[in-house]
Amino acid sequence: MSQRIPVGVLGATGMVGQHFVKFLSHHPWFEIAFVGASDRSAGKKYSEATSWRLAGAMPDDVANLTVAECKPAGAPKLVFSAMDAGVATEIEQAFAKAGHTVVSNSRNHRMEADVPLLVPELNADHLGVLAAQKKNRGWSGQIVTNPNCSTIVLTMALGPLKRFGITRCVATTMQAISGAGYPGVASMDITANVVPYIGSEEEKMESETQKILGAFADGAFADHPMKLSATCNRVPVVDGHLISVSVELSSKPGEAEVRAAIEAFTAEPQRLKLPSAPARPVVYLPQQDRPQPRRDVDRENGMAVFMGRLRPCPVFDWKFLCLGHNTVRGAAGASVLNAELMQAQGLI
Amino acid sequence: MSQRIPVGVLGATGMVGQHFVKFLSHHPWFEIAFVGASDRSAGKKYSEATSWRLAGAMPDDVANLTVAECKPAGAPKLVFSAMDAGVATEIEQAFAKAGHTVVSNSRNHRMEADVPLLVPELNADHLGVLAAQKKNRGWSGQIVTNPNCSTIVLTMALGPLKRFGITRCVATTMQAISGAGYPGVASMDITANVVPYIGSEEEKMESETQKILGAFADGAFADHPMKLSATCNRVPVVDGHLISVSVELSSKPGEAEVRAAIEAFTAEPQRLKLPSAPARPVVYLPQQDRPQPRRDVDRENGMAVFMGRLRPCPVFDWKFLCLGHNTVRGAAGASVLNAELMQAQGLI
Amino acid sequence: MSQRIPVGVLGATGMVGQHFVKFLSHHPWFEIAFVGASDRSAGKKYSEATSWRLAGAMPDDVANLTVAECKPAGAPKLVFSAMDAGVATEIEQAFAKAGHTVVSNSRNHRMEADVPLLVPELNADHLGVLAAQKKNRGWSGQIVTNPNCSTIVLTMALGPLKRFGITRCVATTMQAISGAGYPGVASMDITANVVPYIGSEEEKMESETQKILGAFADGAFADHPMKLSATCNRVPVVDGHLISVSVELSSKPGEAEVRAAIEAFTAEPQRLKLPSAPARPVVYLPQQDRPQPRRDVDRENGMAVFMGRLRPCPVFDWKFLCLGHNTVRGAAGASVLNAELMQAQGLI
Amino acid sequence: MSQRIPVGVLGATGMVGQHFVKFLSHHPWFEIAFVGASDRSAGKKYSEATSWRLAGAMPDDVANLTVAECKPAGAPKLVFSAMDAGVATEIEQAFAKAGHTVVSNSRNHRMEADVPLLVPELNADHLGVLAAQKKNRGWSGQIVTNPNCSTIVLTMALGPLKRFGITRCVATTMQAISGAGYPGVASMDITANVVPYIGSEEEKMESETQKILGAFADGAFADHPMKLSATCNRVPVVDGHLISVSVELSSKPGEAEVRAAIEAFTAEPQRLKLPSAPARPVVYLPQQDRPQPRRDVDRENGMAVFMGRLRPCPVFDWKFLCLGHNTVRGAAGASVLNAELMQAQGLI
Repeated sequence: MSQRIPVGVLGATGMVGQHFVKFLSHHPWFEIAFVGASDRSAGKKYSEATSWRLAGAMPDDVANLTVAECKPAGAPKLVFSAMDAGVATEIEQAFAKAGHTVVSNSRNHRMEADVPLLVPELNADHLGVLAAQKKNRGWSGQIVTNPNCSTIVLTMALGPLKRFGITRCVATTMQAISGAGYPGVASMDITANVVPYIGSEEEKMESETQKILGAFADGAFADHPMKLSATCNRVPVVDGHLISVSVELSSKPGEAEVRAAIEAFTAEPQRLKLPSAPARPVVYLPQQDRPQPRRDVDRENGMAVFMGRLRPCPVFDWKFLCLGHNTVRGAAGASVLNAELMQAQGLI
Repeated sequence: MSQRIPVGVLGATGMVGQHFVKFLSHHPWFEIAFVGASDRSAGKKYSEATSWRLAGAMPDDVANLTVAECKPAGAPKLVFSAMDAGVATEIEQAFAKAGHTVVSNSRNHRMEADVPLLVPELNADHLGVLAAQKKNRGWSGQIVTNPNCSTIVLTMALGPLKRFGITRCVATTMQAISGAGYPGVASMDITANVVPYIGSEEEKMESETQKILGAFADGAFADHPMKLSATCNRVPVVDGHLISVSVELSSKPGEAEVRAAIEAFTAEPQRLKLPSAPARPVVYLPQQDRPQPRRDVDRENGMAVFMGRLRPCPVFDWKFLCLGHNTVRGAAGASVLNAELMQAQGLI
Repeated sequence: MSQRIPVGVLGATGMVGQHFVKFLSHHPWFEIAFVGASDRSAGKKYSEATSWRLAGAMPDDVANLTVAECKPAGAPKLVFSAMDAGVATEIEQAFAKAGHTVVSNSRNHRMEADVPLLVPELNADHLGVLAAQKKNRGWSGQIVTNPNCSTIVLTMALGPLKRFGITRCVATTMQAISGAGYPGVASMDITANVVPYIGSEEEKMESETQKILGAFADGAFADHPMKLSATCNRVPVVDGHLISVSVELSSKPGEAEVRAAIEAFTAEPQRLKLPSAPARPVVYLPQQDRPQPRRDVDRENGMAVFMGRLRPCPVFDWKFLCLGHNTVRGAAGASVLNAELMQAQGLI
Repeated sequence: MSQRIPVGVLGATGMVGQHFVKFLSHHPWFEIAFVGASDRSAGKKYSEATSWRLAGAMPDDVANLTVAECKPAGAPKLVFSAMDAGVATEIEQAFAKAGHTVVSNSRNHRMEADVPLLVPELNADHLGVLAAQKKNRGWSGQIVTNPNCSTIVLTMALGPLKRFGITRCVATTMQAISGAGYPGVASMDITANVVPYIGSEEEKMESETQKILGAFADGAFADHPMKLSATCNRVPVVDGHLISVSVELSSKPGEAEVRAAIEAFTAEPQRLKLPSAPARPVVYLPQQDRPQPRRDVDRENGMAVFMGRLRPCPVFDWKFLCLGHNTVRGAAGASVLNAELMQAQGLI
């Protein structure tokens, strides 16, 4: 009999839900025991309710689960939310109210003043807001969120540089089609093309980054003071968001200092040896033409962010490229790592 | 009998040369009478010496020309240079010395102090250096160059903004594979991928832009004082370089002023109604997700630059996207427009 | 004042309708005077009712037309139908009943016993069924259809070979994404992938081909007796359906005979010099690696079919590749050429 | 100390060689102890001599090996050949003469009368020719080959059908770019395009298939008597050759019989539980739109062939699609499985 902790996935039949199912397959701590979806799927076997869109086969163990409605009764204590923004607010709150820990990839609660927007390597201390969250809302459970898939790549790459005092940052993304779900981007729009627009993405990157890298003090979040400008583009790549970044750093570090800071960067998930934590959160690739989405995105199980091409910026101080796996580190893997941190800290 | 001016193409069998042959087909002023290539092609018919790589069929009139060596004897007075950098210096100078006007797409002479790096809409006055060039070098002919394909897109888009005082600019390109010639980029490198590196491209964009937008006064070029930072990426797009740009403008214009400046932007080629000049050099596309390479690159015969998504930049003043056809406005079309301007001004 | 014949487009705001609008722009005989669409678009300007998805800009003249409901009152005598199969039957019949000539790209009436499935180069005599159609149905108008986009490429290529007695044919298609409309194929399905299935496409290719190449005698259609097997695949190409074909020919012609038959192939549209007719319906490309979709699809304005790689087939007699533009010759252009033939023959 | 059998890779720095290095990493029986390449690489560390083009990082253990010349002295008894056809004949023969077992992916010796063209699931008995090979050539070693990457996919799929008497077969391939090595196919040729030609590929598929599926009796190979016609196309897919196949079967099996034959198909590698053998050589995918290269190619570690869409063929008996990983089952994995079979049979 399995000794793993039973967990649920809300919105399990959708594309993001499928990423959770795939990522949690063979997880050493967690085992999917509950797959929640809409009314019209409830009662069916997961394999019947789901048009599996991912590479490879559907995990056998989940295939045979019966899909439940997204209601707290009978669900495990820990649930991952892969729900569409249109329904996530109400359902996530119902679960939290009923005593569940909701680790959510949905955007709905990210920017609220008493909800952590958690990246374990960057702001584990933000979990300190949870006591206030429970109190404010009268919940026995809680909601923790992870950022948007492009935000997480940028913030992870900025993590090692934060000590140098980031004052300004200009970022242009080249984002994979898998970031838009299914059916997502029409092939007529993106084949041999670039679409220089992703609805609300630039606003999310700018505001979420400032919350994540900001402080949590005296029970409140304070945005990081950097000025940040994002331009978001969709490119014909399957997985992996690549970002071109220029940064102004107040302490004016030299190249060796920046590289050393990247090499030395490690944090709570690494110290705790969380199962999904990459050995090193940010990996610098020294080749002149890397990172590249197709060639690098699956390294480190998709959980590290890759940096490359660090070079002086004629306008600011340094410029570089960074890359992360949008459906792993930028979605399902981010939520799971959040839950692992909370589990290790006794917060679930 | 044709009344058109006979012209030559040096390096006519290569990929860039083929773009010249295609672009000049049915040109109202110029007619290709001379196709120069390497020794091993000389003497063959153009159709036999050339592996035609462009969409559509090889123009019939050029197909039957006999390829000549790239030597001045017998060549027309006006020659376009599509030669590889490895051989262009010596051959272009030999033609100029022998009295030919060499309108070159090669990079070899672009940054020299007595050679115009010409974009007719931006710096037609730079042609004023030609008298000094002839004198310095003892040439009866002359060399005029056009910029690199990514530079021209950026400089055209910055053209209408120059009046507001450009002080800083951060640009990230997403460049088409056709910019690398043939065989150029390996499909294993770029299929469903982005390559965040193009050799020497960032340096060229930064230095060429400053020369083009700079002044020509007292017989000398002075670089434009803006600080400019470029990041150059290759994306799986056939034609069209798209650039994400953030600019700092000293006069702090409002959106209406910027838009009006773009709408009003026109220059010498438009006044002279040069045959290859677009009706408007910079066309603003109001849709929220444009310009897009595949959908917009062929508009205006590939000779205009398209701007879109003008919006406030949290770090500087304004940010936008711009797009241009790299093998038309960024190569063959650029050279031909240069020659048209010189012809109209009696400089050939 | 225009002397062109006013025409209507039913389903004008959809993707197929947009192809009609683009193709008819600057047509020498026809001028769009009526754009019909669903109730919710009716009353708006075409430019407001339509999300233009095609490369280039929306034609100005049509942009300002007011969209009408798809009802016969007030519509021109000649209408093109670009309607979805879900609504085409009823509306097309209503127009025919009201005296209009409906030249349809929809599949609904293609296989009916009194409706021509017309390819002007192949079966112009099938128009002979129209008298019976009117009589049978009590219509003062009429309906004429063109085949599915993959069928037309195959049938055009088989056209010159029909004289040799086609007995068996195996065809495998590689079809462009534009054949599926908009949003059509999800980019997650087709990026760097092939989808070896297109719903109902194989059945359509097999049955339509036999009707088109079949005889019309004694007032009835008789299927061509060849055995035909089709496999239909979607590939990541924007425009152009490429087909690999093996054929058994009863008269066992040699290569020279086959090539000569292709070269000599011409038909009614060429004799009548119809405005949209290609100079030659089938163009043989002698290079060993052609035809290719991206490089060849736009030649001859997309109205010819391109053949290449004719070589002996170890199983049957000959094998070859053929290519045609699916949204031009395979859709809007097919309908327009049908209307041109009918106009020239006094049938409208 | 490792107890694994030391092996060598000839041509180890090239693209095919890299696939061997990747595939053999962590192999339970074999360990790379020798990496051979050209003179100009010899003496360098593998990591310095090699531009690693594959996804993921170069395996650490091989990275530190010193590249040797491709000469037998000092090489392990078992060597894999990943050499270019231009040099493979002489070097492979030198190794065989010197007593080495050469398991080759190169085409040079495939069609020779005393060399097995081995697919372990199909013709393990062909190894019986080795005694004659040694005797004929006076070698103490031996050469065994595997087929071309497209051949192996077709032959594996035909394997379960052979019992029904294959009399005719028409196959059209859609082949991945990785099949052409590096730099291989130019992106200008294949982006958003199909190239309907791969040099010599059709001839190889036709002749190799007949040898592989043919008999070995009385010391000689006899071609399988089927008539086979192949058309080979390159499509913009990274890995995985997909083939559309129509077959005539003399015993006229029904669908259930064909499906059962596929399900039951197993062979020597499965019985011997060879480490690289897939659990089942041919896996039938029941979904209507599978197999698909991007989604299915990596299943079963790339060592199985996937079939789908079995349906009646109006011309022959049955048609279907099949897919295999061209650089795994079609190259490095094929050779390694060949070596595993030989090792298990005591032939090395």
